[in-house]
Amino acid sequence: MQRILSSQLPAHVGETVTIAGWIHRRRLLKSVAFLIVRDAAGLTQVVVTDAAVRGQVEALTEETVVEVVGTVVANATAPAGVELTGPTVRPLGPPAVPPPFDLYRPALAATLPTQLDHAPVALRHPTRSAALRVSAAAVAGFRAALDARDFTEIHTPKVVASSTESGANVFALDWFGRPAYLAQSPQFYKQLMVGVFERVYEVGPVFRAEPHDTVRHLAQYTSLDAELGFVADHRDVMAVLRDTLAVMLGTVADRAGGAVSALGLDLPEVPAEIPAVHFTEALTIAGAPADEPDLAPAHERALGEWARAEHGSEFLFVTGYPMAKRPFYTHPDPARPAYSNGFDLLFRGVELVTGGQRLHRYDDYLAALAARGEPVEPYAGYVDAFRHGMPPHGGFAIGLERFVARVVGAANVREVTAFPRDLHRLTP
Amino acid sequence: MQRILSSQLPAHVGETVTIAGWIHRRRLLKSVAFLIVRDAAGLTQVVVTDAAVRGQVEALTEETVVEVVGTVVANATAPAGVELTGPTVRPLGPPAVPPPFDLYRPALAATLPTQLDHAPVALRHPTRSAALRVSAAAVAGFRAALDARDFTEIHTPKVVASSTESGANVFALDWFGRPAYLAQSPQFYKQLMVGVFERVYEVGPVFRAEPHDTVRHLAQYTSLDAELGFVADHRDVMAVLRDTLAVMLGTVADRAGGAVSALGLDLPEVPAEIPAVHFTEALTIAGAPADEPDLAPAHERALGEWARAEHGSEFLFVTGYPMAKRPFYTHPDPARPAYSNGFDLLFRGVELVTGGQRLHRYDDYLAALAARGEPVEPYAGYVDAFRHGMPPHGGFAIGLERFVARVVGAANVREVTAFPRDLHRLTP
Repeated sequence: MQRILSSQLPAHVGETVTIAGWIHRRRLLKSVAFLIVRDAAGLTQVVVTDAAVRGQVEALTEETVVEVVGTVVANATAPAGVELTGPTVRPLGPPAVPPPFDLYRPALAATLPTQLDHAPVALRHPTRSAALRVSAAAVAGFRAALDARDFTEIHTPKVVASSTESGANVFALDWFGRPAYLAQSPQFYKQLMVGVFERVYEVGPVFRAEPHDTVRHLAQYTSLDAELGFVADHRDVMAVLRDTLAVMLGTVADRAGGAVSALGLDLPEVPAEIPAVHFTEALTIAGAPADEPDLAPAHERALGEWARAEHGSEFLFVTGYPMAKRPFYTHPDPARPAYSNGFDLLFRGVELVTGGQRLHRYDDYLAALAARGEPVEPYAGYVDAFRHGMPPHGGFAIGLERFVARVVGAANVREVTAFPRDLHRLTP
Repeated sequence: MQRILSSQLPAHVGETVTIAGWIHRRRLLKSVAFLIVRDAAGLTQVVVTDAAVRGQVEALTEETVVEVVGTVVANATAPAGVELTGPTVRPLGPPAVPPPFDLYRPALAATLPTQLDHAPVALRHPTRSAALRVSAAAVAGFRAALDARDFTEIHTPKVVASSTESGANVFALDWFGRPAYLAQSPQFYKQLMVGVFERVYEVGPVFRAEPHDTVRHLAQYTSLDAELGFVADHRDVMAVLRDTLAVMLGTVADRAGGAVSALGLDLPEVPAEIPAVHFTEALTIAGAPADEPDLAPAHERALGEWARAEHGSEFLFVTGYPMAKRPFYTHPDPARPAYSNGFDLLFRGVELVTGGQRLHRYDDYLAALAARGEPVEPYAGYVDAFRHGMPPHGGFAIGLERFVARVVGAANVREVTAFPRDLHRLTP
């Protein structure tokens, strides 16, 4: 008999069916035992009254994998309104060693480090798996949004001969006897591929040898990168980002609705046009001195409150960051060259996405590197391509784990990462 | 005026429109000049008769990025049956330095190493970009097939504390002062995630420090990994693989139809049931000695011919490879324990996919490692998880570049990889 999932049971009332999954919990009452079986779709309550089956259930442990054949009976008090009765239970493996924390409790009682040490079992907890379902749906939405706008997916090297974002925080490795580095971003490659496809995206790992142990930093994270050509300026990029975020959140609602309910999430609305303020205005709104070169976290929080009060928006673009604080490939504002055509998107008062227009002329790259006192040589393979004709272009990068952490309200990005990597953690 | 793509021109006959792209070619005849503009969607022929515009076009170089405003006129001999007349031409950047090879010729005349040295421009050639469009469509199909079958996408660590597949061919790196390795596959992680989601997939880079310089090996490639639980044996995995390949090829036809036409491809049919032969039968069919432990390339070619002649199929499963030739996590055939529940899928007589059923009991892992004289300790974080209840499961991995190379008929995987990495190549 073909196994069915717990979510399919309501369509089989009165029938004998086979389910399979993990023993989530056993409740051994005097006259009856309840076996709660967890599968990918949810929980099934199995009612055990037969003495022999009860004896078998008593001998099994939580997390043992079992197959259960039984009759589907409607019961309004059971999960999804149905339960299985008259079961036969067949273990699909030896009795499991119970995990070091109870997976059947509504919240995982173990500390985060303990959860991370035992990630393969901690991730089975419905709250942890729900966050990863939100993550998978967000990525599917990112791709769907960009596919619909004629972007092409690319895959670029994760090992490079010179660092992409800056000389700091790179992991060095031995590449057949030569020095090499893990890529800190696909920045250069996605720009080069604008020359091929005009519009590209990549979903992939990036690596930062972050010496800081914070709730926001991972040494490997998943970057959702997009880049598009033939833009007038950064505002064309912001419009694509706005639409992408709307589709991402819409896809989370559609594809991870169960997870959204389980976590009790209130998904944010993306306004048709996200309000935008220039960096100089942002300083004024935040009450910061006019000569501040960047926004501090307190400023971002103040801006988040302002956007909600003034525009009813949880999102706020800050444009025109000072050139001095942006990477060398950033395009300046032609009207005010000390400021950039770069932007950040704040979500609930915290930076969520960085993006902007990039330089597209070879001579501008040479000048930008010279102005920073950086040699051209490490960037030659990248910069040279701009001699061969590149359109005005720009793009953005969304850190998947930060995005998901903010959507689900996790205090630490490690709560929404299956197997995080950081300063201290290289296993499991 | 909003720019439109070359593919949209036929809907605008008689109108004045704006297009933009790269100067693909200029043909300067006596009474008329033709400017061929390439954009993401194809080519546009621009007819120049005005002397001033002609002078401007003469001064421009191939690959310069331009914007052209002109009138759309039907012309059966032009690309897509339309051309632009009475144009004004505005460069969107300085004149381009022409690439070291002609992008407008039907085939790229440069050697593959020259193409790879100049990848950012070589990839603009329609044959090279078409192969990458096939690749993007194949990946989209992989995901669509598995999404429809309730698989969940995962993202796993690419830096690990011990090697996954074997001690050889790993890249070592310095992880905050500790030794670490680039992951050779997501094998262990996808198995662990079966314990969470039952069915998972991952699209991501894997790293092999291949000391061999061949047309089939890359040091970084994109692996399409899937793993599913609650299988009876490897045949359930083969059925999912069959359906996945069919959707991948269907999606290539749907989403990369232009590329398929441009490359003149004849996409293979995936039979409703792919024929399968046991390893021992395969040896007989290939005329190999009965004690051969593996199939040589010549055997695979013979099997490919046999499958086509006998079953009219370009695909053939070979099952039951000897355990001695498969990784330690492979599940043996319960009826013949010297043979495995592992399979290879041959496509046109070459191995395309490897997969199989895995061990799912903790004790079996201990025994398998002991039998190979391998210590448990490096695998502890992986093997320990099997104490906590894992269902029978299996999966497969498709090497994206090999798959695409075979579909497009490329002799070298580097022809279908944007920026390949190998023994000799770390740039661009």
